[in-house]
Amino acid sequence: MRRFALTLEFDGTPFMGLQRQAHGPSVQQAVEEAVQAITGEDVRMHAAGRTDTGVHALAMRAHVDVAKDIEPFRLMEGVNAKLRPDPIAVTECRIVPEDWHARFSCIGRGYVYRIVNRRAPLTLDANRAWQLAPPLNADAMHEAAQHLVGHHDFTTFRSAHCQAQSPIKTLDRLDVERVSGLGGEEIRIHAEARSFLHHQVRSMVGCLALVGMGRWRPGDVRDALAARERQALGLNAPPQGLYFVRALYPEE
Amino acid sequence: MRRFALTLEFDGTPFMGLQRQAHGPSVQQAVEEAVQAITGEDVRMHAAGRTDTGVHALAMRAHVDVAKDIEPFRLMEGVNAKLRPDPIAVTECRIVPEDWHARFSCIGRGYVYRIVNRRAPLTLDANRAWQLAPPLNADAMHEAAQHLVGHHDFTTFRSAHCQAQSPIKTLDRLDVERVSGLGGEEIRIHAEARSFLHHQVRSMVGCLALVGMGRWRPGDVRDALAARERQALGLNAPPQGLYFVRALYPEE
Repeated sequence: MRRFALTLEFDGTPFMGLQRQAHGPSVQQAVEEAVQAITGEDVRMHAAGRTDTGVHALAMRAHVDVAKDIEPFRLMEGVNAKLRPDPIAVTECRIVPEDWHARFSCIGRGYVYRIVNRRAPLTLDANRAWQLAPPLNADAMHEAAQHLVGHHDFTTFRSAHCQAQSPIKTLDRLDVERVSGLGGEEIRIHAEARSFLHHQVRSMVGCLALVGMGRWRPGDVRDALAARERQALGLNAPPQGLYFVRALYPEE
Repeated sequence: MRRFALTLEFDGTPFMGLQRQAHGPSVQQAVEEAVQAITGEDVRMHAAGRTDTGVHALAMRAHVDVAKDIEPFRLMEGVNAKLRPDPIAVTECRIVPEDWHARFSCIGRGYVYRIVNRRAPLTLDANRAWQLAPPLNADAMHEAAQHLVGHHDFTTFRSAHCQAQSPIKTLDRLDVERVSGLGGEEIRIHAEARSFLHHQVRSMVGCLALVGMGRWRPGDVRDALAARERQALGLNAPPQGLYFVRALYPEE
């Protein structure tokens, strides 16, 4: 049995999230079935993170254990062929030690959230960003975001369905920048932490958007955090702007 | 009667091109029907350029003549609402003089062609770029591209269905750059001219791709141009990487 580490890119639109679900398509099911088609083995995929319906990944990390003697490149090519036409691609595949675990060895996770700041509906970016019409003040959003960086009780920014034992997390980075995308003015929010609570990034982004629109002052985000209750949340940003972009491991 | 200039963004995937077709959906038909739904008038749209099936636009320019007394902002909002769920958006709308013509007043057109240079199939960029696995030499492509810049007979790079009277055009710019996109390594090709022949950009890009792969030398592009025959064409790039990005008018 050898352990293969996979890097996955996917468009989350047609999936009920990354994790296998009883009642709908998932990234996990699609990848497991593709690996099974190539190896003939009943495999289970483990991933660095769970993503919700509509959330995308540029570089999700995962692993599968395979008995068949197959080169990583052949496995990747075969799985990519079997995955079509599902919008999932294996962009890297290599053999790792048996104690390497995509989820438990992961020491850092990074997300990017895209807001296209314009009045017109999205066309090429439909399902790939959050369209917000009011002009957003990116500087105020960035200032507000700094109140969330650090070691805090993030209860306010946690889904009612969150399964984490503790709401206390350390947020290492929450940067807001205005960039000029192919489709126009865009706000990108970069979030990094060892791990996140369920809906944490989307909840933080929602409150930052309120600040950007001038409906909240930057200090209101600090107060929402201090409240430590879900009712203090201003707004949960929709899933389609969220991208899992990075998982970090000790040896990398 | 007042003339409204529209800036259009669209995902070309579901359309049989910009121009109205007897046997399938087009951008022109969708916009005309949306304007008609708002104004009650039978309008005809004129656009700066024609695009093929699958070709996108970030800022196509067009105009329509409307008798109804309506503010440009209201027309834009109404048309955008009626266009849903078609992936077309009006991003700007203003009143222009009656002698302003989206096609005939246009003195410059710009395209960008996106090649995602990687082995894995595209997911988020599916239908939005050309995926090419062999590592491309962008410097060689740029060098080759410079042989095409200038005043030339572009017969080699012209579709058999091209309706232009003359194959002689002046290509003002053909730049090749390697950029780091959200989805990885990307080659972007920027083309600018007063006007282009049918399939000219895709035909030029196809030959530059052969140079990038090392199958052609940069000088082969000069020879293909000099041959002035379609048979000398190396490869026609697929439509989904092509974006109409700019139309230029004297007053702007």
